[in-house]
Amino acid sequence: MGKATEASIITIGDELLIGQVIDTNSAWMATELNKAGIHVRRRVAVGDKYKEIVSALDEESERADIILLTGGLGPTADDITKPLLCDYFGGKMIVDPGALKNVKQIFEVVLKRPMIERNLKQAEVPDCCTVIQNARGTAPGMWFEKNGKIYVSMPGVPHEMKGMMETTVIPMLQARFELPAILHRTLLTASVGESTLADMLEDFESDLPKDISLAYLPDYGMVRLRLSASSFDEEKITTVLDEKFSRLQEIVNEYLVTNEDEPMQKVVGKLLLSRDTTMATAESCTGGYIAHLLTQMPGSSAFYQGSVVAYSYDVKESLLFVKNETLTTHGAVSEQTVTEMHTGLMKQTKADYGIAVSGIMGPDGGTPDKPVGTVWVAVGDRKATKAIKLFFRFDRNRNIQLTAMSALNELRKFILGNE
Amino acid sequence: MGKATEASIITIGDELLIGQVIDTNSAWMATELNKAGIHVRRRVAVGDKYKEIVSALDEESERADIILLTGGLGPTADDITKPLLCDYFGGKMIVDPGALKNVKQIFEVVLKRPMIERNLKQAEVPDCCTVIQNARGTAPGMWFEKNGKIYVSMPGVPHEMKGMMETTVIPMLQARFELPAILHRTLLTASVGESTLADMLEDFESDLPKDISLAYLPDYGMVRLRLSASSFDEEKITTVLDEKFSRLQEIVNEYLVTNEDEPMQKVVGKLLLSRDTTMATAESCTGGYIAHLLTQMPGSSAFYQGSVVAYSYDVKESLLFVKNETLTTHGAVSEQTVTEMHTGLMKQTKADYGIAVSGIMGPDGGTPDKPVGTVWVAVGDRKATKAIKLFFRFDRNRNIQLTAMSALNELRKFILGNE
Repeated sequence: MGKATEASIITIGDELLIGQVIDTNSAWMATELNKAGIHVRRRVAVGDKYKEIVSALDEESERADIILLTGGLGPTADDITKPLLCDYFGGKMIVDPGALKNVKQIFEVVLKRPMIERNLKQAEVPDCCTVIQNARGTAPGMWFEKNGKIYVSMPGVPHEMKGMMETTVIPMLQARFELPAILHRTLLTASVGESTLADMLEDFESDLPKDISLAYLPDYGMVRLRLSASSFDEEKITTVLDEKFSRLQEIVNEYLVTNEDEPMQKVVGKLLLSRDTTMATAESCTGGYIAHLLTQMPGSSAFYQGSVVAYSYDVKESLLFVKNETLTTHGAVSEQTVTEMHTGLMKQTKADYGIAVSGIMGPDGGTPDKPVGTVWVAVGDRKATKAIKLFFRFDRNRNIQLTAMSALNELRKFILGNE
Repeated sequence: MGKATEASIITIGDELLIGQVIDTNSAWMATELNKAGIHVRRRVAVGDKYKEIVSALDEESERADIILLTGGLGPTADDITKPLLCDYFGGKMIVDPGALKNVKQIFEVVLKRPMIERNLKQAEVPDCCTVIQNARGTAPGMWFEKNGKIYVSMPGVPHEMKGMMETTVIPMLQARFELPAILHRTLLTASVGESTLADMLEDFESDLPKDISLAYLPDYGMVRLRLSASSFDEEKITTVLDEKFSRLQEIVNEYLVTNEDEPMQKVVGKLLLSRDTTMATAESCTGGYIAHLLTQMPGSSAFYQGSVVAYSYDVKESLLFVKNETLTTHGAVSEQTVTEMHTGLMKQTKADYGIAVSGIMGPDGGTPDKPVGTVWVAVGDRKATKAIKLFFRFDRNRNIQLTAMSALNELRKFILGNE
């Protein structure tokens, strides 16, 4: 039986420290490392400063077996990582023939742009590393070893880093370390608060064996519950974990949306597919966000027909047949308007089910009667329309997200209630 | 003249280390701290482990004047931060009357749900801290001081943390430290690579004074260029920075999209507003993402009418008047189809300008003729339609994002070209 293998992730770039860029790489890397049985112990972001990077390397080496670095490898002058790594691991810079071929090919075949001197520099690597070729860009990755620790430097461009991780880095780490099974079981609840869940689960949680833990993850007004286990005896822990997960589902059954780690939009998509039905949307206040959530999923065309994003009165009238009188009498944010939007949507498309939403997302547009956060949602099929009033008290973006999630959940309940 | 004030951000939560959550808090906090003249030196993410949090506190105290913590303050059992801080700063737990009143009020007035014992615990704080009331949730923030360093602990829920930072933490930090002016000037370029820009800017960059730096930030197939300055002599540095920024705009003028730190969708929105015109979209492959980008902006209803998200053939035919023959002869991803989508959109709405997009975003759906990544974009007004073929070679999400940005940029060029 081996010991836990731990990794630290160091992301490099001044842009991370002034907030111009949100670090999505670390979350993706953490997910992949965990799946492979590698525990991520820390994530550190530092600027493009020589001393900061060296001190992060020193400190994380004290903690982790594997140190993964991203960023700081582009062709421009603010990138200092490569020469630094060359010093840190005691090598000298050489041109790597594989990397050179790759850079040349990208310019000749893909970009169809003349290559300039600066791009050739990208084929240079320290002679003390194993080069990881970059199938998606010009900057090669580098694998170093020092005092039994592994260091991997990758570009910060997400799709380039992901390509390297998947094809090369994860397999090389799996070959090198004896890794435990890390297993997660996740479910999603709606219409219940974190504290109430915690009260319901107090006994359950205190009875968990020490290699299984429960986490509460708030998710757009819903709560995701996750059981995590780590063990070198995969068979045994799987049995225990599955028993505990069944029990967990029983306890929260009333609020259960899905017993898989999947977003609400996927739950709705699977429900529609399982009934061989389709849906469409009529969006005012969410402005296409529900459509975006659904169409982000590959294969969504099998259950999603489309959306009318009716932002103006004109579009509500001409494309969704909302009566002008309804808009002027009751306003765009009203039971009458969303009901007519839904009915019009059902006429305009061949979809079996539909969602219509209209609300005031803020920061402006609120009135004493209808403050910012007031939302009307209509869900239904070709025969019936159900309208629901909601209220959110957050900023514009979060109001849009919460409206989208609630509307999808209302449609899910409508479909299940009509069986 | 003071010295630079430095902050470290520590985010706490196992969910950050298994990748279930993307850390958007740190980027937001970094932006706000920078605006206030506080330099963020490091960002560290650690799990819900006592020793890890303590060691992060110890290490960051060595580096920074201000240590900001988020996360680990919820009502559930995986939250250990508050008792830890109580130990770390040597206090005992007491009930804070203000926090108690806040918790009670949130349950009685906002949530309209009975409060349970666990929620009352949220009003407990170490007696050695200054309480920062949470106007948007039940967990109070805490301000500690030790050996001349400031420590602020806030909940991880983004809108709660943001409320505290804006109303209390930033003003308290500004009152405490003598802060330099940190100034940024940002512009956006399109249709040019990072390396080519770097070559164009080599002399410019080497001539910059040492308190001004240039960064290259890739942004959806475009490149953002940022000049940053930090100085206690705000007036003097502003003059130099503005001169340098003017020069920068001259050098990259051919590729310049905007000389402000704003996204493409805002550039297009401002352009439309300045001409008192509106636009609409007809989206197939982007599935509502262009509509979402536009409607995320407050006030977008002044220039945006709406979108037909025509995901199915049916919707393309019934709502955008694309001929069935066009779809069967040329396919949904073709010059003919996007042109008809654009023409239909102009008929269906009163918008002055329109965008239509159709493409194959992947991972499936590609053919030898039209591989994944093939996109047709049409832009135009009520008189003319211009179709452009594009090709992207990334994953589904990135292809969607790049298509949206390119389509908006094509419309921008169309509007400017028609003056």
